[in-house]
Amino acid sequence: MIIVMEHNATAEQLNRVVKYIENKGLQTQVNNGTVLNVVAVIGDKSGINAENIAAMDGVREIKKIQEPFKLVSRVAHPEDTVITFSNGVKIGGLEKPVLMVGPCSVEKDFDGLLKVAIAAKEMGCQFLRGGAFKPRTSPYDFQGLEEKGLQYLAKAREKTGLLVVTEVMDTMDIALLCQYADVLQVGARNMQNFKLLKALGRIKKPVMIKRGPAATIKELLLAAEYVVANGNPNVILCERGIKGFDNQYSRNTLDIAAIPIIRKYSHLPVIVDPSHGTGKRYLIEPMGKAALVAGAHGLMYEVHHDPDNAMCDGAQSLNIEQFKDVTRALNKVIGRIDYDNKNNPQTY
Amino acid sequence: MIIVMEHNATAEQLNRVVKYIENKGLQTQVNNGTVLNVVAVIGDKSGINAENIAAMDGVREIKKIQEPFKLVSRVAHPEDTVITFSNGVKIGGLEKPVLMVGPCSVEKDFDGLLKVAIAAKEMGCQFLRGGAFKPRTSPYDFQGLEEKGLQYLAKAREKTGLLVVTEVMDTMDIALLCQYADVLQVGARNMQNFKLLKALGRIKKPVMIKRGPAATIKELLLAAEYVVANGNPNVILCERGIKGFDNQYSRNTLDIAAIPIIRKYSHLPVIVDPSHGTGKRYLIEPMGKAALVAGAHGLMYEVHHDPDNAMCDGAQSLNIEQFKDVTRALNKVIGRIDYDNKNNPQTY
Amino acid sequence: MIIVMEHNATAEQLNRVVKYIENKGLQTQVNNGTVLNVVAVIGDKSGINAENIAAMDGVREIKKIQEPFKLVSRVAHPEDTVITFSNGVKIGGLEKPVLMVGPCSVEKDFDGLLKVAIAAKEMGCQFLRGGAFKPRTSPYDFQGLEEKGLQYLAKAREKTGLLVVTEVMDTMDIALLCQYADVLQVGARNMQNFKLLKALGRIKKPVMIKRGPAATIKELLLAAEYVVANGNPNVILCERGIKGFDNQYSRNTLDIAAIPIIRKYSHLPVIVDPSHGTGKRYLIEPMGKAALVAGAHGLMYEVHHDPDNAMCDGAQSLNIEQFKDVTRALNKVIGRIDYDNKNNPQTY
Amino acid sequence: MIIVMEHNATAEQLNRVVKYIENKGLQTQVNNGTVLNVVAVIGDKSGINAENIAAMDGVREIKKIQEPFKLVSRVAHPEDTVITFSNGVKIGGLEKPVLMVGPCSVEKDFDGLLKVAIAAKEMGCQFLRGGAFKPRTSPYDFQGLEEKGLQYLAKAREKTGLLVVTEVMDTMDIALLCQYADVLQVGARNMQNFKLLKALGRIKKPVMIKRGPAATIKELLLAAEYVVANGNPNVILCERGIKGFDNQYSRNTLDIAAIPIIRKYSHLPVIVDPSHGTGKRYLIEPMGKAALVAGAHGLMYEVHHDPDNAMCDGAQSLNIEQFKDVTRALNKVIGRIDYDNKNNPQTY
Repeated sequence: MIIVMEHNATAEQLNRVVKYIENKGLQTQVNNGTVLNVVAVIGDKSGINAENIAAMDGVREIKKIQEPFKLVSRVAHPEDTVITFSNGVKIGGLEKPVLMVGPCSVEKDFDGLLKVAIAAKEMGCQFLRGGAFKPRTSPYDFQGLEEKGLQYLAKAREKTGLLVVTEVMDTMDIALLCQYADVLQVGARNMQNFKLLKALGRIKKPVMIKRGPAATIKELLLAAEYVVANGNPNVILCERGIKGFDNQYSRNTLDIAAIPIIRKYSHLPVIVDPSHGTGKRYLIEPMGKAALVAGAHGLMYEVHHDPDNAMCDGAQSLNIEQFKDVTRALNKVIGRIDYDNKNNPQTY
Repeated sequence: MIIVMEHNATAEQLNRVVKYIENKGLQTQVNNGTVLNVVAVIGDKSGINAENIAAMDGVREIKKIQEPFKLVSRVAHPEDTVITFSNGVKIGGLEKPVLMVGPCSVEKDFDGLLKVAIAAKEMGCQFLRGGAFKPRTSPYDFQGLEEKGLQYLAKAREKTGLLVVTEVMDTMDIALLCQYADVLQVGARNMQNFKLLKALGRIKKPVMIKRGPAATIKELLLAAEYVVANGNPNVILCERGIKGFDNQYSRNTLDIAAIPIIRKYSHLPVIVDPSHGTGKRYLIEPMGKAALVAGAHGLMYEVHHDPDNAMCDGAQSLNIEQFKDVTRALNKVIGRIDYDNKNNPQTY
Repeated sequence: MIIVMEHNATAEQLNRVVKYIENKGLQTQVNNGTVLNVVAVIGDKSGINAENIAAMDGVREIKKIQEPFKLVSRVAHPEDTVITFSNGVKIGGLEKPVLMVGPCSVEKDFDGLLKVAIAAKEMGCQFLRGGAFKPRTSPYDFQGLEEKGLQYLAKAREKTGLLVVTEVMDTMDIALLCQYADVLQVGARNMQNFKLLKALGRIKKPVMIKRGPAATIKELLLAAEYVVANGNPNVILCERGIKGFDNQYSRNTLDIAAIPIIRKYSHLPVIVDPSHGTGKRYLIEPMGKAALVAGAHGLMYEVHHDPDNAMCDGAQSLNIEQFKDVTRALNKVIGRIDYDNKNNPQTY
Repeated sequence: MIIVMEHNATAEQLNRVVKYIENKGLQTQVNNGTVLNVVAVIGDKSGINAENIAAMDGVREIKKIQEPFKLVSRVAHPEDTVITFSNGVKIGGLEKPVLMVGPCSVEKDFDGLLKVAIAAKEMGCQFLRGGAFKPRTSPYDFQGLEEKGLQYLAKAREKTGLLVVTEVMDTMDIALLCQYADVLQVGARNMQNFKLLKALGRIKKPVMIKRGPAATIKELLLAAEYVVANGNPNVILCERGIKGFDNQYSRNTLDIAAIPIIRKYSHLPVIVDPSHGTGKRYLIEPMGKAALVAGAHGLMYEVHHDPDNAMCDGAQSLNIEQFKDVTRALNKVIGRIDYDNKNNPQTY
C-alpha cells in the first residue's frame, strides 16, 4: 500500500499517518519526492483500513499494490483449479472446454426440454442449463416454474446423463436447489449479493458466478473469494457481457479479454456466455469461437425447441437445428485446440 | 410496439408476424416504407412477448413505445406520492427536502453513534442512517454488527426522535428489520434482487431503493414497480452515482439529471446520496446543493464521530464539526427553495 | 512514480529496472514488501517513459503519483485564472458566472439571430454563441454557413455589445475565426485534435475546450495543457456531458461533480453546457441551477427564435419566451451566490 | 421514422405534426394506440430534420427505423468491398486476413525500423505500420519525426516490398502523406474530425478509420460514410477497443463482437488492433486469434526492435522474437480459416 500525501501536506500530517500505521504493527518507508511525499506500508495490511487513512488530513490518495483477493489468486495458488464431476466431466486447467446448453427458463412443456437435452447429448455437450427461478427486470415477465422446473431438469438428466446447471436467487432456496442441481449458478444481478455468496460457501456443490453487468474483473474475483473463503473451493467464473455505451446492435459488450486476464491472475476456471453476452442469435457462433481460442474453459448458450414461443430471451436462443449447426462449428474449434504444459496455456 | 422488418424480409415473413399478433387478440397496422416495412401493434401488450417476435424470421428489431413500468408511472398516477411518518415527517411532492445522515455502519461504540444523532437532531435532520448488515465487496472487510446494530439505532431514535433508515440484505432478515427500522433500504448491489423486492412489497414500512451502479433509470423504476406491484406503495428512490469510465477523482458519477427525469416520469420521491455518489468528503456540499436545486426530495450523507477510525468509508464521511458546516450550508439552500402548485415543480 | 514488480520477479529483473532509472539521473528507493516489491522513483520524471519501464521483464504495473499536467495545475499556479475581455466582462475565480447563449448553428435568417441576441442582451447575458462551422455525425446533416455565419455573428455583436463564441474545426480556419470571434471553441469531438490545440496555443484569443464525450477530467486538463504550453494561457473548460450506459431519457450524463473537481485541481475557469449535456429542453433549467450552485463559472445553452425549424438540435433549444423564463430563474440563483476569500470557494 | 406522441398530447398537436410532415411532401400514417398515438412517416426522410419534430409540442420521442448511413450499408451495396493494392495484396470479403505490424512511432534509428520490417516480411505480413505524426494525450510526450519518419517508412518499403500504413492528423498534411503512404490511417481521437474525413474523401488512397474510444458502431459507420460520400470508396474500419468502467487489467475493452456486427450491416473490411485494444503485450496473441475466428479481415499490432527504449507504447509492443512467436501462432489460425460462398461468411 502506497499513501500519497498532498503537495502541501505538513510534516505533522505525515507523521500522524506514519504513527497510525506503525501503531498497527506495520512498517513504513517514507519516500520524499520532489513534489509529493509518499509512504509505503510494508507487512500484512489486513488489519488496517485504507479508507480511514484516506480520510486523514493531508492524504491525497491511497494506491493499493497487492490484489485484495487472496484465495482465488494465482499468487497463493499457482496451479489451475480443475473441478471434477461424479460422471468424470472436468472443468478448468488444460481440460477440454465444456458446453452448457439449454433454454433460458424451464417451461411447462417437458417434452420440449427433453428434445433440447437429447440434441445436446447427441452433440457432445456436458451440461443442461435452464432457469427454474428467473430474475426478470420487470415484475410482469414470467418468473419461472420453481420446484417443478427443477424436477424437469432432474428428469432430463436421468434420461440423458447431462449434468444440470441452474440459478439460485435467494439463500432460502439453496437447500432445495442442492437436491436437484449439479452446479448452482449465481446470476449477474446477484453477483454482489454477499449473503447468498457466503451461504454458497457452505455447500459442497460447485458454484458458477456470472459477472455483473458493471462488475470489474476484480469485483468478480472478490465475489468468488466470498465463496472460497467460506469453505467452497469449487467456483467457476462466467463472463456474460458488460454494459457499455453502445447497445444498439448487441445487448452487452462481451469482454473476451477477461478470459486471458482471469487465467493470468486466478486459478479458477472461466467460461463464456455468448447468448446473454450479445443478445443476438447470429453472434453466438463467432463469439463462441472467439471465446474458445482466447482460452475459455467452456461456453454456455441458449437453445430452445421453439424460440418463437419461448417464455424469455427468444431472440438470443437457437432452435434445435441452428443449435446443431453452431455446435458442430464450435466442436471443430474445440478439436483443434492444442495443449501444452505452461502455466497459462491452452494454445491454439 | 413497433416491429421493424428486415429490408429483405419476404411477404410471407411479414404475414407470419401479423398473424402471430392477431392470434393474441391484438390489432396490427402495417406501414409499408420505401426501404423497410414496419408493423404497429395496438392494444394491451401484456400478453405477448417482444423477444419471441424479435426471434421470428425477417424481424430486424422491436421498438417499444410505452414504458414497461405502470404503477410507478405518472401516466397512471399523476399526483406525487408523499410518504408520511408517524411523527409527521413527510417525503415527496412539494414537501421540504429531508436530510438522512449517520455513519456508514453502526459500530460497537454506541456513544459515538449517539453523538452523531444528537448533532443531526440539532441541525434539523429528520433521519438517522446506519448499516447493521453491511454489503462489502471484499469478504475481509467489516460485515456489520447485525441485530446489536439495530438495537443501537433504535436506542438513538428513542433519545433523539430521529427516524431510522437501515439496509436490508436478505429476505430472511426482513422481519427483524421491521422491528427496528422506519425505512428499509435496498442497497445498490441488491437493486435487482427480485426475491427481496417482492418480499418488501408485502410489508408496510417504506422502502428506499438505491440505484444500482450500472442501472438505467428505467431499471430503477422497474425495481420500484416490483415493490409497488406486490402491495407496498411507499417507495423512495435514491440516486447514488453510476459507474463511468473516469473514477480517478470521484468514485462514481453522480447523475444529477436523474432527479428531474424521475420526477417527470414517476410520482415517487427521489433522494440523492452525495457521499457514495462521489466518495469524497469535499464533494458532499457542492453536490448536495446541486441535488437540492435540481429538485431532490432529500439527501443522505455520511457523518462519523471519528472518521479516521471508522470501520468503513471513512474517506467519504464528515466528522461532526464538518457535518455541521455542510448542513448549515445545505439548510440555507433548503430555506430558499420556492414552491408552487404545478405538477413537477419545486422551483428555486 | 511507483513501479510494482511481479510477485515472482527475480532480483536481476529488479536490478535492471533500478539501473535503467538511475542511468536517467534519477534516484530510486526500493521497498521490499512481504509479497511484492516496489521501486519508488524520485526526481523529475519528464526524461523517462513510464511505458518503457512497464514493458520491462518482471514489471507488473506503474503507478503515477504526480498529475501529468503542470501549467494548468493548482500545484504550480495556486491563484485562479480570470480572463478579462475588452468590454470588461470577466470569467473565472470569484467573478459572477457568465451566460453564453444562442442557436446551435447560425442560419440564413439574420433577423432570427438578431432577435435571439437582443433577448440575450436584455436578460443580462454576456456572450452570443452560434456555430458557423458545424461538426455533424452524419455527412447528410447541415454543415454550417461558414464565413457568412461569422459575419452574421459579428453584426449581431455590433448591434448588442455581446461577445461572440464560435467553434473552430480545423487549423486552416483559425486565422479567419480570429477576425470575427471573441472566444474560439474547440468542440467535444476535437478535444484531442492535438494539431488544432497546438495551433490555438499560438493565438491571443481565449479558447474554450469542451470535454470529449468519453474524456476523463485528466484528459481534458491535458488538452488545456497543450494550449497553455504553446503560449496561450486563456483557456476556459466546458463540461457538456459524457457518454454513459443510459441514454434513454437524456443524451449524455452531465457530470456536475467535474466542476468542483476541476476547481480543486486546476486554476482554469469551468463552465457547463446543459443543452448538449442533456439533449432535453426541460432539463436546461434544473441542470443549469445545479451547475451554478456547484461552482460553475458560467453556463452555455441554446436558444433559437424558431426551434421547430432549426437546422440542428431543435429538441434541446429554448424558444425566446422559454429562454426568458429559464434565464430569469438562473439569474435568481446567480444573484444569491455568496463569495468568500478561500481558495476553492464561491459558496452559496 | 416513427413519431411517438405524449400520452396527453392534444388532437391539435397531433395534427400539427402530421401537417408539418405532409408539407415536406411525405406521407404519414397515424396509429392510435390505447395509451399513446404514433405517427409513421413514409418516404425519403432526407429533407426533414427529426430534431425539429422532436421539438414540437406534444411529441415525446422520435424512433428512427432506417440506419442513417447509406453508402457504407449492405442494404444499398450487398457485395463486400475488396481493396486491391498495386502489389496484388487484397483486404476484405473472403480474402485471407492481412497483418499490419510495426512500431507505434517511427524513431530516429532507421536500422531498428528495418529490422522490424525484415522480420515482418519474413513472417508473411503485408503491411508496415508506424506513426510519423503522433497524437499524444500529453504535450510533453514525443510527437513524431514527421516527414523524416515518412521517408524512413518509404525506404523500408523499398527494401522489403511491404505496404505502408501511417496516420494523418490534419488536413494540411494529406498531400505530403499521399506521397509516402499506401494507406492513410485516421486515429481514434480524430474519428469525428469531419473536415479531415471530408478531405480524405477527395483522395484516391485507401483510408483506414479507427473507432473512437467512445464511438458507437453507428458513429464509426457514419465516419466512413463521410469519406465515401465525398468520393473515396476505399475505406477500412478498425476496431481498437472502447472505454469501459474497468481499465485495471486492460487499457480498453476490445469489442470483438463489432466484427460480425459490422460485417452484417456494412460491406467494408474491418480489421482489429489488439495492441491498442488491450495495452498489454500478453493479450495480443489470444485477442488476435479471437478477432480472426470472429471474422476480422486483418490485424494490426505493434512490434519494436527494442521495446524497453521505445518512444511510445512500449508496454503493448512485442520485441522481434516475441513477434515471431505470436505471428507464427496467428498464421496457424489464418491457415485454418475456411471460406465459403455465402454473403457474410468466412467460416472457421
